[in-house]
Amino acid sequence: MNLLVTWQHLSDYDLEFIQAKTGATVLKGFTQEEARQHAPMADVIFGGFDAAPILQYAVKCRWMQTPFAGVESILAAKWGNPQMILTNGRGSFGSNISEHVLGMILSFNRGLHLARDQQNQRVWQPRLPIPFRELTGATVGILGFGDIGRQVARRLAGFDCKVVGFRQHPTDDAYGMDVFDDHLPTLDYLVCALPETPKTIGFLHKERLKRLPKHAIVVNVGRGSLIPTDDLIQALEEKWIAGAALDVTSPEPLPTESPLWSMPNVIVTPHNSGYTALLKERSLQLFFQNWQHFIETGYPQINRVSASLGY
Amino acid sequence: MNLLVTWQHLSDYDLEFIQAKTGATVLKGFTQEEARQHAPMADVIFGGFDAAPILQYAVKCRWMQTPFAGVESILAAKWGNPQMILTNGRGSFGSNISEHVLGMILSFNRGLHLARDQQNQRVWQPRLPIPFRELTGATVGILGFGDIGRQVARRLAGFDCKVVGFRQHPTDDAYGMDVFDDHLPTLDYLVCALPETPKTIGFLHKERLKRLPKHAIVVNVGRGSLIPTDDLIQALEEKWIAGAALDVTSPEPLPTESPLWSMPNVIVTPHNSGYTALLKERSLQLFFQNWQHFIETGYPQINRVSASLGY
Repeated sequence: MNLLVTWQHLSDYDLEFIQAKTGATVLKGFTQEEARQHAPMADVIFGGFDAAPILQYAVKCRWMQTPFAGVESILAAKWGNPQMILTNGRGSFGSNISEHVLGMILSFNRGLHLARDQQNQRVWQPRLPIPFRELTGATVGILGFGDIGRQVARRLAGFDCKVVGFRQHPTDDAYGMDVFDDHLPTLDYLVCALPETPKTIGFLHKERLKRLPKHAIVVNVGRGSLIPTDDLIQALEEKWIAGAALDVTSPEPLPTESPLWSMPNVIVTPHNSGYTALLKERSLQLFFQNWQHFIETGYPQINRVSASLGY
Repeated sequence: MNLLVTWQHLSDYDLEFIQAKTGATVLKGFTQEEARQHAPMADVIFGGFDAAPILQYAVKCRWMQTPFAGVESILAAKWGNPQMILTNGRGSFGSNISEHVLGMILSFNRGLHLARDQQNQRVWQPRLPIPFRELTGATVGILGFGDIGRQVARRLAGFDCKVVGFRQHPTDDAYGMDVFDDHLPTLDYLVCALPETPKTIGFLHKERLKRLPKHAIVVNVGRGSLIPTDDLIQALEEKWIAGAALDVTSPEPLPTESPLWSMPNVIVTPHNSGYTALLKERSLQLFFQNWQHFIETGYPQINRVSASLGY
């Protein structure tokens, strides 16, 4: 069994460990050239979106595991084996992304981003040019109530706020998207954790942003394409909403000339909410579980991606 | 009944409301001169530490309510009536201070303070010069397990971490201070929420800081005097600990020349964790409850301060 590993986050030591644990022949493809060379022999690929361009050569690959959650570039690539099963890293990121979300919300509530600016200027000024806010008594909407949305909700549980989840397919703990618009005027915070699909691109457009309360804070850790950038800038400039915390933007990187960089009511982080010191450990654990099932049954069990849904 | 109000955070409208609600003659003392002039007539004082200098003239004052939690300057002042009962704002700040604590911890975990610096320079660089951290699996010590400490613990409940509280008088949910030193090597985070008393000044000195793990983060929202400043600087410079988030310092304001301002592993906020848009509402609610009891029984019921304990 040939296992092509393209995920550059791994070390040679990790590759040895993977070889020992799986018994597979591990092919290292950390450069595009190496990866392309090995691709035709691969039965399984373990790698990120960097592997997308070489998938066309992976004609006998039956399964690809990506450590990441977003798969749009992999789905958009040409696959050498159209029957290939794709599994993603859904579930590996909930804890760190939810810490990122809470960190950004609490930064707004406590003005920590402005206190940081003061610290850099060695200024001690307790009153800040924004009102202090609390989650106490607030309503937090979570758009996209999958693993990440639920982990955010779990971490909000101790903050005396109300959490309302929305997802494509309603569940016991989340509303369907059909009632989302009705809830918009009730949301003090709106956390967006949706994947990029044809249905989500441009979904949070100006008409929806206008329905939020003027004091609402929008947090986006899903994909930047959810909110048309011009609409978001207009909403912030014309104060339809009070602020935005963006780990994702459209396009990325955020262009140097974007006004979002310097708005006092915007926090930008460079699409790193998914980064965690525990990613390698969690990704390998998931891969080994799927590997075991793949060897026993011919297909991986956990986190199969639906090409039609796009996640 | 004469009620002297010195708390400048209140408006004339608030004073009217207080007069209507209590039936007392409200004396406004927003300047030192006004306060001093009215002090001898006051039966009750509602005010902050700014009232400390005029307490010597308040010879018939039977009760003073302060909206704040820290009372060291009031206890240190000369009292015109040594029998005066002092009540404080304990319990009004737990929600906002705990949001401040969580916000600072999560800023460290996610590098939000460094991302802010990048934002100011319009730089998009996902990898930061610090390791990403998680509360998942971590142990958080809380030194001072009163209202604030418990509110921090409650908000940490969804983060998959272990919380260990320490307080002067051990309870079912917190250890006594006698075992604090034994726990130091096990703490990934140490949150300090102690009042200033003779026992707490200098308590977290260099010998204790040395016992923390090298990756530990120290958060202080109590009083700056808890940690000798030179010891803290040494601990950070010599990397006995990984970082500090300080809402309180010694002295305050933090002097312009202090190296703490510019250390990459230090977050400074200007003693404003106690600020909340809900303070007035909470303080008045507490005051009216105590007022009711005072009228009925001659003494206030909630949050009596022990002069011997200092809180």
